[in-house]
Amino acid sequence: MTDALWQWPITDLAPRIAARQLSSAELVESCLDRIERLDGDLNSFVCLSPTARDAARAADAEIARTGPRGPLHGIPVAIKDNYTTADLPTRAGTAVEALTFPMQDSHCVAKLRDAGAVILGKLSMHEFAWGTVTPQARNPWDLARVPGGSSGGSGAAVAARLCPAALGSDTGGSIRIPAALCGVVGLKPTYGRIGRSGIVPHSWSLDHAGPLTRTVADAALMLQVLAGPDAGDPAASAAPVPDYTAGLDQPVRGLRIAVIRNHFFDAVDAEIGAAVEDAIGFFAGQGCAVTDVTVPSLRYGLGAIYAIELASSAAYHDRNLAQGHVAGFADDVRDLVEMGRFVTGPDYLRAEQVRARIMAEMAAVLAEADAIITPATPLTAWKTDAATVMLGGREESVLAASWRLTYPFNLTGLPALALPCGFDRDGLPISLQIAARPFAEPTLLRIAHQYERAHDWSSRVPPSADGI
Amino acid sequence: MTDALWQWPITDLAPRIAARQLSSAELVESCLDRIERLDGDLNSFVCLSPTARDAARAADAEIARTGPRGPLHGIPVAIKDNYTTADLPTRAGTAVEALTFPMQDSHCVAKLRDAGAVILGKLSMHEFAWGTVTPQARNPWDLARVPGGSSGGSGAAVAARLCPAALGSDTGGSIRIPAALCGVVGLKPTYGRIGRSGIVPHSWSLDHAGPLTRTVADAALMLQVLAGPDAGDPAASAAPVPDYTAGLDQPVRGLRIAVIRNHFFDAVDAEIGAAVEDAIGFFAGQGCAVTDVTVPSLRYGLGAIYAIELASSAAYHDRNLAQGHVAGFADDVRDLVEMGRFVTGPDYLRAEQVRARIMAEMAAVLAEADAIITPATPLTAWKTDAATVMLGGREESVLAASWRLTYPFNLTGLPALALPCGFDRDGLPISLQIAARPFAEPTLLRIAHQYERAHDWSSRVPPSADGI
Repeated sequence: MTDALWQWPITDLAPRIAARQLSSAELVESCLDRIERLDGDLNSFVCLSPTARDAARAADAEIARTGPRGPLHGIPVAIKDNYTTADLPTRAGTAVEALTFPMQDSHCVAKLRDAGAVILGKLSMHEFAWGTVTPQARNPWDLARVPGGSSGGSGAAVAARLCPAALGSDTGGSIRIPAALCGVVGLKPTYGRIGRSGIVPHSWSLDHAGPLTRTVADAALMLQVLAGPDAGDPAASAAPVPDYTAGLDQPVRGLRIAVIRNHFFDAVDAEIGAAVEDAIGFFAGQGCAVTDVTVPSLRYGLGAIYAIELASSAAYHDRNLAQGHVAGFADDVRDLVEMGRFVTGPDYLRAEQVRARIMAEMAAVLAEADAIITPATPLTAWKTDAATVMLGGREESVLAASWRLTYPFNLTGLPALALPCGFDRDGLPISLQIAARPFAEPTLLRIAHQYERAHDWSSRVPPSADGI
Repeated sequence: MTDALWQWPITDLAPRIAARQLSSAELVESCLDRIERLDGDLNSFVCLSPTARDAARAADAEIARTGPRGPLHGIPVAIKDNYTTADLPTRAGTAVEALTFPMQDSHCVAKLRDAGAVILGKLSMHEFAWGTVTPQARNPWDLARVPGGSSGGSGAAVAARLCPAALGSDTGGSIRIPAALCGVVGLKPTYGRIGRSGIVPHSWSLDHAGPLTRTVADAALMLQVLAGPDAGDPAASAAPVPDYTAGLDQPVRGLRIAVIRNHFFDAVDAEIGAAVEDAIGFFAGQGCAVTDVTVPSLRYGLGAIYAIELASSAAYHDRNLAQGHVAGFADDVRDLVEMGRFVTGPDYLRAEQVRARIMAEMAAVLAEADAIITPATPLTAWKTDAATVMLGGREESVLAASWRLTYPFNLTGLPALALPCGFDRDGLPISLQIAARPFAEPTLLRIAHQYERAHDWSSRVPPSADGI
């Protein structure tokens, strides 16, 4: 059984752990072994927890004694390196040694530990979740390509089956982009749904915490544990946490799906466009009412998120700017942080007004629809040395392209999920994005789960990681 | 009866109108007559409605036919000139002729008309509710003194009994300061409680609409009509609107009152301090539990509200800056709008963070208390030509002093009310400020009403307006 362990999602692992057919110690050992064999190429982990084996044995002992706490008990989870942890240093992707972060569990890590999860290690990321690259990390589908970012290590590790689940963070797409480029499920819940205290901030009003998993059902299990109030995060919602798995198996018949035809289908790779149209066709075939709509103010969205993100990041790094630490940042990150000082207060406020308009237009769409379907990214994983791509007959920076379809849901705070919906001619994953109303994660997860179980995209394993 | 009409609050007028012992036409005529005789000196009105008499006759006819719509039916109300009106031009205090505003009723004016109120005219104000003076308007208690602002005309008109109620707006104290300096009741409700669409914006996140009245019970009647959702104001709350008059007569025994001893009692005129201590003693004598507390982050409040207000105002005036209209503003207003361009986005965000801290500290105070009591202003009405005042042994600009105790409740959005609590040696009104939890206007009004009915401050009439 051990040799297949890495192939299983949490929904298969958890019942076996609960029934004591599988030990957490055995599962963690299998992950560590796989990391040892594969991560030399992938570079997804920045450090491994020296206490993971002990935590797994403790989980096994408790399960033997009093039964499992829940479906994450004994399950190994890896953590993006901008979540602080009591037992592992946090670097948030920076090389500036003078900058240190508290050795204490962030809200989400504490919640995972409370649920009995075993923290496996920390994952590589873009410096401060900003800039352009997750240094060194590679895409398991093609080691010459990027895993996407900023949660690049999270995407690569879950895709390569080094761990069943990881935490990421998403300010403009940083969970969904690596999920899309690596062919896994990435969930950015509603703004405020998961508390963020202990995550190194990027842009307070745009930052979201969330999981990357192999399957939609696993995302539901992770959200179940992570959602809820957080006394340390003023934006965390006290809204009741529903059961995220109860409705997954309900059919989608009768749901209304909106397809935003402007912005989200401009300059999208043809194979991606075709795969998303197939997915839309699937939902229509399942009895969903599909309607094409437009959200005109999206044309102002990029300026708005740039102003907000630049200003917010510069505000967070105020002391680092004053003390000269920013000089030690990667060139691209330093430029962005320094640029943030030149966003004016009136610029910032106008950006928030554009945001309010986009939110109102999206709310109008979702007053008439249960979900929105779009491509997750307009391109698949690009070569590590590529700077631009041709899309829609126009040359575009790969970085500008990468977040073009994800950032609208950071501006609006709507829950959005990326999941595989095909492969391109190079065998690289293509990804669908589904969004829903605020706090409608049950509907979002149900739609995604129904799509996933009718297709076999999620079961494919990257060649570099298969059978190893 | 007519000769005493001007002395009566709405609570006395409304039953007589309902019983058809008094006509709205007669009441409106008496107001117009009084304005004619007194406002040449006071300059509180910028224009009178040519349709007020017709509206009053229509109200009388409807009341005769089908009875009154409610307690405001037939009651004359005057409007600060930053609320748009369908039948009167709106100038928002500016002399720049190129700037015009829609000839349509703002949300609040429409609500007043729906309640049957008669719009009497528009009231003078600081230019764009910014800057330092309400031009020309004078304080009825001493024509050589200012009425305060920015709703200076509203304070002067209600104090001089030119109309029983007026609308004001409050971004840093602009309802409560003129209420305090003119000796009337000024209510700034919870942020979002009254919809603001159709009010010329100053600073979106600080702006509040609210009434100035002779008595607390009249403020409750006005709030009853004005509160509720507003499709044109994204910040307007959909929280249910309770009955604001039902609980006014309940005793205050057992209520817990917090006195914030830092900031609110620093550099306060001795006579004002003594009057407020007397008021605090009154509540203790009524069986309230009075506790001294501190809100440490208030020391950063002035920087925060300045950054937010300057940046917000510059964002609103973006086009006026670009088109050169700002050059036509009064010097002080032009300076403030131009300064707003130099607040950076990171400055703005840090100001919002300070605000969040002050809100959290105030929430902690109000978790243990039902209300907060402070002086409304640290000084009484100053001479028109005074620029500075000595307070606490330190020379301070009268303008800086005037809003020092009111702006904390704009930053926090908590409901706050100013009401008379005495007179200084010059016979000028002294004012108490009471604040409460978000949407706890019923408690706020009840506390204020119980104080008011145990004292006779509100019944005093300014000498310049008495017996005339």
